[in-house]
Amino acid sequence: MNMIDLIEKKKRGGEHTYSELSYIIRGAVNGSIPDYQLSAWLMAVCFRGMTLKETTVLTLTMCNSGGKVDLSNIGRTTVDKHSTGGVADSVTLVLMPMLAADGRMAVAKMSGRGLGFTGGTVDKLESISGFRINLDQSEFIKQVNDIGLAVVAQSIDMCPADKVLYSLRDVTATVDCLPLIASSIMSKKLAMGAQNLLLDVKCGCGAFMKTKDDATQLARQMVKIGKMAGITTIAFVTDMNQPLGSVIGNRAEVAEAIAVLNGQEGVLRNFCAEMYAHCVSAIFGEDLDAAARKAFELLDNGSALNKFKEFINAQGGDFNSILVDKCEKKLTLTADRDGYIDNVNAVALGKLFVEIGGGRKEKGAAIDYDCYIRLHKRTGDRVLKGESVMTLSAKELPKLKLKDYVTITGEKPTINKSILEIIK
Amino acid sequence: MNMIDLIEKKKRGGEHTYSELSYIIRGAVNGSIPDYQLSAWLMAVCFRGMTLKETTVLTLTMCNSGGKVDLSNIGRTTVDKHSTGGVADSVTLVLMPMLAADGRMAVAKMSGRGLGFTGGTVDKLESISGFRINLDQSEFIKQVNDIGLAVVAQSIDMCPADKVLYSLRDVTATVDCLPLIASSIMSKKLAMGAQNLLLDVKCGCGAFMKTKDDATQLARQMVKIGKMAGITTIAFVTDMNQPLGSVIGNRAEVAEAIAVLNGQEGVLRNFCAEMYAHCVSAIFGEDLDAAARKAFELLDNGSALNKFKEFINAQGGDFNSILVDKCEKKLTLTADRDGYIDNVNAVALGKLFVEIGGGRKEKGAAIDYDCYIRLHKRTGDRVLKGESVMTLSAKELPKLKLKDYVTITGEKPTINKSILEIIK
Repeated sequence: MNMIDLIEKKKRGGEHTYSELSYIIRGAVNGSIPDYQLSAWLMAVCFRGMTLKETTVLTLTMCNSGGKVDLSNIGRTTVDKHSTGGVADSVTLVLMPMLAADGRMAVAKMSGRGLGFTGGTVDKLESISGFRINLDQSEFIKQVNDIGLAVVAQSIDMCPADKVLYSLRDVTATVDCLPLIASSIMSKKLAMGAQNLLLDVKCGCGAFMKTKDDATQLARQMVKIGKMAGITTIAFVTDMNQPLGSVIGNRAEVAEAIAVLNGQEGVLRNFCAEMYAHCVSAIFGEDLDAAARKAFELLDNGSALNKFKEFINAQGGDFNSILVDKCEKKLTLTADRDGYIDNVNAVALGKLFVEIGGGRKEKGAAIDYDCYIRLHKRTGDRVLKGESVMTLSAKELPKLKLKDYVTITGEKPTINKSILEIIK
Repeated sequence: MNMIDLIEKKKRGGEHTYSELSYIIRGAVNGSIPDYQLSAWLMAVCFRGMTLKETTVLTLTMCNSGGKVDLSNIGRTTVDKHSTGGVADSVTLVLMPMLAADGRMAVAKMSGRGLGFTGGTVDKLESISGFRINLDQSEFIKQVNDIGLAVVAQSIDMCPADKVLYSLRDVTATVDCLPLIASSIMSKKLAMGAQNLLLDVKCGCGAFMKTKDDATQLARQMVKIGKMAGITTIAFVTDMNQPLGSVIGNRAEVAEAIAVLNGQEGVLRNFCAEMYAHCVSAIFGEDLDAAARKAFELLDNGSALNKFKEFINAQGGDFNSILVDKCEKKLTLTADRDGYIDNVNAVALGKLFVEIGGGRKEKGAAIDYDCYIRLHKRTGDRVLKGESVMTLSAKELPKLKLKDYVTITGEKPTINKSILEIIK
């Protein structure tokens, strides 16, 4: 086999066989295929796409390129969750303890750092004083067994093929390619070894997928791959035109998750309850309405919050450190007219958050765990002139115009649902 | 400017500006843009193409990336000629001395080696004992001035950008892309500095362009680029389904050129006469028929042959060494039935020639100057059972079946013209 012929085949729209994809992935990992051939191939894949069969084989091959987590001895059915990345998206922090508190499931999750203008669970958890994200595999499995919930950062030896391809894609404009995105996500999820997988595929200005169609296609493809690999997979296509929660921050988002785990009403609470309900309904065949009632119970009776405390404590985090607001400088922007909130721009706010130090402009850069942007209003909310719309807290306060982030209109706008489609 | 953005722009079908293409070419030459980004960009160009404006700018930028030949002090108008590569294509060896013998033109040509299954003028000339292909620039220009004809191999400092891109294209399946082929050829031709350019764009199984449409498009694009650069450019779209001359070889093709220069009739003679006629008609506004008569005169009265001898002598070659047949082993394949020659397969014969040692399987490999394949028949010729169809002469004779190279049919087939279209 010869990489030039394989590039040529994909360039002409051919379908790769199992042995061809194995050859490429093996060559990517052991370095026998040079980067310039891989990147030409990746670009050809961007133009020609991949069949579902190819994408599934690519996923499994990437998954098998490195180490895997063995969750087979966990007493309960295991659940993993993945978000394609959004702004003020602390769903993981609320949903994981809900699922673990249920008692029938164990959550074994590998998380990532923030990418571009989107947040990452690892960054949020690391904002907690003392929190250890790098558990070794035996610690990780023991914790999943003991308390039904553990989170680690991606380990070096897992999916090395994905690391090679992803770092190339990042610098060759080949990131936005459906089969490459699907196989990158799913290979890591399969390597984590959970039996059930919840996928939150976000779309809109504050997500990598801009349209609902693209997000739905990606969600369908990942669900099919998951099923082919024998795991229960449910994908939620969700709106990310406006931030999901009411605060963008690292520790501030953990604090918001705690508020929701403590019974606070709102979009984030309903979102997590619906995910929980679909999850237990799919796994245990439970009635959806009954499952949703159970979700609110777990949030209102403190059991999810207790599980969250147990989890933070198990990984060395200081729970009491979370709720302290360390920022001294604050800037509040107010409405210059009466009206309704028309648009809360997730991408503009996500980029502003990076700008004030909360996210990274370069890989590996240090971030500020303390800064945040709090949104006092959501799309569709009534607002009066002079009323607070957003508050920024940072070491250095930039000069801002509210209209670059939030627009106000005279007529009440239509409000989009947060969960647009559920694919099982 | 940022290469990732430029790849993205081309991927989305955008048109590069002058400064963007300059940035890419500068980065390719000085190494600041890594190969993996260049190859992803090249693949995007394969899918999205380039406008004529982009291709012209790319050509000029590549041309300006290295040294140029200054032909401005040559007393006569200067002519260069290029073939996209074929099998048994010794047009250059016949046409160049014809043009030089005319007396009004000087031929200053840079030639290449054989590529894949196609032959190269440098290899053919190097088969002549003593021939020096690597003249320095002053020797080259002096010879063009003195005798009106000189040939050199591509020099290292000319079009370094083309060298970088071409070697990458070769290993990333991005060779067959019209704007990349056109700019690669034309950048080198422009750097050679001739005022007039003849292009032989071959199509068919024995050429890189398989269809007449592709070849015509390439020819049109190169003529437009040439005109934009201010040089008289004529392109011939010619058939390469069957070999052009009657022998495939290195020294054997030089010998065939000498036979044609000595008045031998046939396809090669007529082909060269037509090219000559169109060339002088375009440059001097001469009547085409009168120019064609002049062409045959130059071939019949020995003046072109004398010019060829002068040229070989000037570059140190031993003319008398050419006509010696050094091969001892010969294999002649004969017809197994009466009929007509249906198909003489240029690509199969070209590959067979590489197989017996006449061409290279790897870059830089040594080749056998002595071996050859002689064709006793052309498509449409009558053939009787037992009659010789082809003779192979090589150090090691392979086992062959005639039908893999030449097919015989019961009915006389239609014969394609050699020159399919002329674009000025």
